[in-house]
Amino acid sequence: MGDKDSLASPAPGQTGDSASPTSLAALDATKLNITLAKTLKPLQPIETLRFGQTFSDHMIVATFDPEIGWSAPEVKPHGPITLDPACSCFQYGGNVFEGMKAYLGPDGKARLFRPDMNMRRLERSCARLALPPIDGDVVLELVKCLVDLEKRWIPKESGYSLYLRPTVIATRPGLGVIASDHAMLYILASPTGPYYEVLKPVSLLAVSDNVRAWPGGTGGHKVAGNYSPGFLPQRIAAEKGYNQILWLFGDDRRVTEAGAMNFFVVIKRDDGDGVDLITAPLDGTILPGVTRASCLALASDPEFHKECCVRLHPQEKVYTMSDIIKWSSEGKLLEALLIGTAVIVGPCNKIGYEGEDIVIPGTGMGPVGTAFRKKILDIQEGRTEWKGWGVVCP
Amino acid sequence: MGDKDSLASPAPGQTGDSASPTSLAALDATKLNITLAKTLKPLQPIETLRFGQTFSDHMIVATFDPEIGWSAPEVKPHGPITLDPACSCFQYGGNVFEGMKAYLGPDGKARLFRPDMNMRRLERSCARLALPPIDGDVVLELVKCLVDLEKRWIPKESGYSLYLRPTVIATRPGLGVIASDHAMLYILASPTGPYYEVLKPVSLLAVSDNVRAWPGGTGGHKVAGNYSPGFLPQRIAAEKGYNQILWLFGDDRRVTEAGAMNFFVVIKRDDGDGVDLITAPLDGTILPGVTRASCLALASDPEFHKECCVRLHPQEKVYTMSDIIKWSSEGKLLEALLIGTAVIVGPCNKIGYEGEDIVIPGTGMGPVGTAFRKKILDIQEGRTEWKGWGVVCP
Repeated sequence: MGDKDSLASPAPGQTGDSASPTSLAALDATKLNITLAKTLKPLQPIETLRFGQTFSDHMIVATFDPEIGWSAPEVKPHGPITLDPACSCFQYGGNVFEGMKAYLGPDGKARLFRPDMNMRRLERSCARLALPPIDGDVVLELVKCLVDLEKRWIPKESGYSLYLRPTVIATRPGLGVIASDHAMLYILASPTGPYYEVLKPVSLLAVSDNVRAWPGGTGGHKVAGNYSPGFLPQRIAAEKGYNQILWLFGDDRRVTEAGAMNFFVVIKRDDGDGVDLITAPLDGTILPGVTRASCLALASDPEFHKECCVRLHPQEKVYTMSDIIKWSSEGKLLEALLIGTAVIVGPCNKIGYEGEDIVIPGTGMGPVGTAFRKKILDIQEGRTEWKGWGVVCP
Repeated sequence: MGDKDSLASPAPGQTGDSASPTSLAALDATKLNITLAKTLKPLQPIETLRFGQTFSDHMIVATFDPEIGWSAPEVKPHGPITLDPACSCFQYGGNVFEGMKAYLGPDGKARLFRPDMNMRRLERSCARLALPPIDGDVVLELVKCLVDLEKRWIPKESGYSLYLRPTVIATRPGLGVIASDHAMLYILASPTGPYYEVLKPVSLLAVSDNVRAWPGGTGGHKVAGNYSPGFLPQRIAAEKGYNQILWLFGDDRRVTEAGAMNFFVVIKRDDGDGVDLITAPLDGTILPGVTRASCLALASDPEFHKECCVRLHPQEKVYTMSDIIKWSSEGKLLEALLIGTAVIVGPCNKIGYEGEDIVIPGTGMGPVGTAFRKKILDIQEGRTEWKGWGVVCP
């Protein structure tokens, strides 16, 4: 059922044959044009915030044309975008995004958390879908501009933040299975709170018949098409009474991710030297999460061990449902943690697998998860300085 | 890096808890509202048609709202669509489409080719991404309306047609990794010609490090996110001098699809009883193509064997690059065919694999491919009646 153009060579501009890359305009934050909203929206009471439903007054937009390059980016009122219905973003899924948060510190300054990691991932995601190249450092400048402009939207309360969503979509206005030589970058800002009022544990259903990611696929990139295939399994899990899915991979039922988050287990060691902190390796089927990398870095830092009151042995390695069952039966499975930008660190209390529930001990977040969450929030909210992870805006 | 909402239960309307399915309006072709373009575009000379670049005067649009159901569908001038930038279609890739063609027969009637197969697949694709349910029979009524309205856009010349692109996109206007409870259906019409003036053979680069589809994924559905991950490998193949990719799967290098098309090989049999027509089985990693199914059906029909002048033994089975190399070295590999709605049937002349080229004999399409192409075009263009495959519009 191929499109006819699927036989064609790359379109002009795709391989630099219509215009040399050097003649195309680069994305340039210094060219930012600002069109402010005529009236500003009232801030919403923080109790009524629901994730991703409220947006600030403005967004930033820039477009890529294969003959011109990147347009001057523009701050404009947050609002709808208008596109040709034949655009690749609708037809062939050539869309990528990032999720970041800006926090207001006790010093009144807005901070991003390790935004360079998001930007490098955005560059890789764009390259993986053959979108026009984008300079993440410039995108970060634009993100900082938006944070600065929308500072009144960052809630002052701990655990609240301004969620930022840089998105790049493929806007080639025609059918044909070929890389998009047009693109649009936009950055949205949405005030958001902690997912839990109390840190309520999440139940997971381990699933192996639906597979989120696979070697040679796009599971290691933040591309839009990774997410919608999980919606039907997620609905089925919800109907069975579970909050989310634990994605397994392969005949040996390797544990990969939970929902759209990374997943860690805390395992008591036989030698009595603290605990193992285990998560799946970055083999292309796992999203390289910023919070994941941060927890692994903290876990290998003796200074953090003191704060955590336990020695942690971080391990990125393949582990399976059989391992989890064994650790559980031996009483070594101490904590199971969901890790991601939105949740930061959250507890899992049970895993449904083949008709049985593996129950995680305790009634909420355990000591390791609690220590991670506290430390990362302290850094994000500017109460602690730590290795330059908190980046002040602008 | 999960969204906070990825922990949440399905949104209202997702599981029918906000409004019972029976209270929602069904898509209804009899409610079609028609707003005609004020001026009609001039028809383009057929020599200048490029696939998917020219569109007819009108499109059909309908929207799904979780509280109301489907809106009355509307014929309106072909043009841009306006959406919230937080919509799922941009963020989470919840988009599906179909490709179909309307042909003008010698009797002056417009015909679709087995459109019921496209509509069942559209229903399955929507269900796979947890999009709101859609009745393919009603979509087909709308497609027929559009074909009837745009009949002047169907070129009269053999091999030319009006390509139709029913598309369903996820329009939930908010972030959060959850099924979209809003959707938009639109149907575009684009006049198109044969890909080749002469049936120029296509070269393929066999690729196993990038994997198009995998068990438990969406390769058996026509979802937008299946396509963009192939753009980078396609560009690399083009830089190596190949027109398209032959997607392999698994350690044993199973042959699956070519570009965005199904793939067949014609193999001389040892028993002298004609040829085997071999294609990969529908195991979830292969798109169930309409042209694929039609070739398989023709290949098992003795009446077609007479037209083809050879006895065909159709086989849907796993076969590998090792098999292709063996068949080639034994002189049994007679033809390799690309099969899809856009190309119909096209020849492959070589397959690059591990630094060597496997050369397919002959200088163009072989006798089996030629017979398939002629028969299917005869049915599509209304010169032959065959099992009800040609469906007159309206």
